Amino acid sequence: MEPERAWGQATAWMGTLADLDGAAAVLEWDRETIMPPGAAEARASQLATLAGLRHAHLLDPSVGEPLDALCDAEDPWRAASARIAIRERRRAARVPETLVRALTEAQSRGVAVWSAARTTGDVPAWLGALTPLMALTRDHGQALADGGDAYDALIDLYEPGTTHAMLAPVLESLAQRVRPLVDALAGAGGPPLPAGPWDDAAQMDLARYVIRDMGFDEQCGLVGRTAHPVTMGLGAGDTRLSTRVDPADPLSCIMAALHEGGHALYDQGVPVPRRRTMAGDAPSLGAHESQSRFWENHVGRSPAFWDRLHPAMARAFPGVAADLSADDYVRALNRVERRPTRVESDEVTYDLHIVLRTRLERAMVLGDLDVADLPQAFDDGMDELLGIRPSAPAEGAMQDVHWAAGIVGYFPTYTLGNLYAAMLADALEGAVGPVGAVLAEEGPAPLLGFLRERVHRHGRLMETPDLMRHATGRDLTPDPFLAHLERTYSPTASVP
Amino acid sequence: MEPERAWGQATAWMGTLADLDGAAAVLEWDRETIMPPGAAEARASQLATLAGLRHAHLLDPSVGEPLDALCDAEDPWRAASARIAIRERRRAARVPETLVRALTEAQSRGVAVWSAARTTGDVPAWLGALTPLMALTRDHGQALADGGDAYDALIDLYEPGTTHAMLAPVLESLAQRVRPLVDALAGAGGPPLPAGPWDDAAQMDLARYVIRDMGFDEQCGLVGRTAHPVTMGLGAGDTRLSTRVDPADPLSCIMAALHEGGHALYDQGVPVPRRRTMAGDAPSLGAHESQSRFWENHVGRSPAFWDRLHPAMARAFPGVAADLSADDYVRALNRVERRPTRVESDEVTYDLHIVLRTRLERAMVLGDLDVADLPQAFDDGMDELLGIRPSAPAEGAMQDVHWAAGIVGYFPTYTLGNLYAAMLADALEGAVGPVGAVLAEEGPAPLLGFLRERVHRHGRLMETPDLMRHATGRDLTPDPFLAHLERTYSPTASVP
Repeated sequence: MEPERAWGQATAWMGTLADLDGAAAVLEWDRETIMPPGAAEARASQLATLAGLRHAHLLDPSVGEPLDALCDAEDPWRAASARIAIRERRRAARVPETLVRALTEAQSRGVAVWSAARTTGDVPAWLGALTPLMALTRDHGQALADGGDAYDALIDLYEPGTTHAMLAPVLESLAQRVRPLVDALAGAGGPPLPAGPWDDAAQMDLARYVIRDMGFDEQCGLVGRTAHPVTMGLGAGDTRLSTRVDPADPLSCIMAALHEGGHALYDQGVPVPRRRTMAGDAPSLGAHESQSRFWENHVGRSPAFWDRLHPAMARAFPGVAADLSADDYVRALNRVERRPTRVESDEVTYDLHIVLRTRLERAMVLGDLDVADLPQAFDDGMDELLGIRPSAPAEGAMQDVHWAAGIVGYFPTYTLGNLYAAMLADALEGAVGPVGAVLAEEGPAPLLGFLRERVHRHGRLMETPDLMRHATGRDLTPDPFLAHLERTYSPTASVP
Repeated sequence: MEPERAWGQATAWMGTLADLDGAAAVLEWDRETIMPPGAAEARASQLATLAGLRHAHLLDPSVGEPLDALCDAEDPWRAASARIAIRERRRAARVPETLVRALTEAQSRGVAVWSAARTTGDVPAWLGALTPLMALTRDHGQALADGGDAYDALIDLYEPGTTHAMLAPVLESLAQRVRPLVDALAGAGGPPLPAGPWDDAAQMDLARYVIRDMGFDEQCGLVGRTAHPVTMGLGAGDTRLSTRVDPADPLSCIMAALHEGGHALYDQGVPVPRRRTMAGDAPSLGAHESQSRFWENHVGRSPAFWDRLHPAMARAFPGVAADLSADDYVRALNRVERRPTRVESDEVTYDLHIVLRTRLERAMVLGDLDVADLPQAFDDGMDELLGIRPSAPAEGAMQDVHWAAGIVGYFPTYTLGNLYAAMLADALEGAVGPVGAVLAEEGPAPLLGFLRERVHRHGRLMETPDLMRHATGRDLTPDPFLAHLERTYSPTASVP
């Protein structure tokens, strides 16, 4: 087939996929931010219809020949797009459209039920929605696996090419090496910040200030507010991120802003002309998470960041923050503490939460754990790994939106993100300078420049291991992450 | 074909249409309220893709037989749904999908360009977007008309069964009977309200209060803010309306709230179980507008409404409104004045604006007026009908979003709405009591009850003339409207 004609057909086909994905993202953003409660059922149905149409379009047989013809294209963007498209089509062909629709509808309902039940602590309502959803997720994994491991097939949706057999040793060895650190460091860091109240609007203003300062382009996106912070790409030129506000703790809002800001900068960094192709995105969630974790942990927990921000804090919260120093923030933030809530955990304990979720979700998918037993298993697992028990369902198995949204196989990518982020910070130190020194001298622009050059601009041209090898010169290794923890959290390092 | 099987197939098919319409409405609502400017192109493409998919689904041949089988169904909802669906399919079959997509894309771009150009007064930019859009609209009208009148075919999109030949005599005779009234009444009413400033947030709060008081269900909708007020149905349980804020004039915000509130109550009044059928909506825009005009003009301009609202006004605007009486608001509102802006016009002059737009848009569609000559023709026409000339493009042909959004054939429905609203107010007087007296004694609930019973609950079971005959006992007549104007605006009536 003539290459230009093949590319013309492929781009039209990919453009429709991009439009359907963008439209679904608009519906989801609206749902997470302002949708009235009475619309839940209609919205679930709309998303199911879009998912069904996407599925049918993805499998359109007429594009098979053009895609095959493009696999050997000289232009790497064309070849990568064809390769990714063929893999997605092969995967989609394994899942019947009825299952796709049922899953999407159950996911929308799951989020709505979770959102209400988490507030009221209504565990039975939540489990009532989760049970059929998890059964559908298992069906999904089995259909995708085509005789292989259902959990591996689900991981592959988020972290292509990675299996549980590859992940498990890394996760379990991290847990082993981190647990003594937790024992040694628990209680390190300073006291928490004053309880406030920290003004609601001022927190959002400050979050917007931080995100703009990182380099976020507000002409091509916006910052909102949700219960669970999130970043969404709604199409080229429309990247949205949200943070949350806790009146007793401004750090929660700012760290979420840094985290989601990292995702958002990645989304904005993929070249716009590539956005409507299959290669115009990140190659995996682990790659994406490397960006959010870089900004959250390597930037946001550094003394240099708080040296820059603390005057703005004092202006934003004149009653509470007037007498706080940069050091007070760093010490409050870098407190190592066994906390039940993953998103509020410090960097040292964080991955223990991921180990727990990975064990549990795998067990649910493989049928080794009943959903009805999940709350108990969650609490027991936290006890074993972290030595604490959640005090309420909202701090236990119900704390995350992921399972309620049918997102299974996703949690391990957070830890991959932590490892890649540390590898990137090491590489940045070699190429530009240490994160803190760069930030102190030139602000965040050189950090973003490094990430744009080494990661963002490549879109999905390479799979994640290749991309990270290209960016850092190394294969996946936990060593820089552990070195970073030891350096940052040793008793002398935490008060620089 | 077995009736239940036919209905099953038809409802699945209609449900997908409803989902696609709802999804497009979410994308449009987002665009009108918060979308970042960089997303304009992607959003236009998303909407074009959804429109293309809708078009293809509408014409799905497999549903032809079930729909034919349902035309004689005993259940009137089934029969009406089949009748409407068959008409829509016949219409859609006349329009090639390429034209649908081009039109949708040009409409999205047109709104974006208009929105920016109106602010800066950039007439060439606006005309640059309008010229190709109007050419596509003409193609659309001609394709729909299938040899008939292209403008009639466009009117039929909004007011099924009505032609320009039916409308023109009504419009021109109204203009003839209204112009002497304008001459006699210009300057009637009281002075405008103090210039303020009227607090921005307080205006929105008050608009929300008014809309809730009318009976709007906030569990199934929300109130936003846009440059051009709008109401959208985003699916069952999701009715959204917006108002606008002018810091110098709180009446603009409140009247828009009443107007859009009327549309929104109609949307919420269609029985939810019918929403996913073709009959689960209003039969025409004229019918819809009868509701908005009822609340805006028969309720909002009445002394009884302001007797209820003026204490809240005094609380909301303590600096400006403390000494204003109900009568001050009524007199300021019911000032008869030749104003260039349609949406700010009083009830007496309003229909002259519609006559102007109807003449101009018909001429553009039939090729008798070049888009390039529109600004001049608009100003000349306003001079002839109203005796004034716009002072700036934003007050002239550029003032409305309609043409920039490719909405042509729509304007006449505003006047139909005025006539039907007056007919309904007359019928309400016979059945329940005069609007003002009911409002003073029992508040708005009996008014809404009457409209729900006579209009809303019937959805699209009848065409508009039949629905209005059923609701009022009369055929379309301008007499109640003219009597209402004479009664309300006679020098003695305006100060009750």
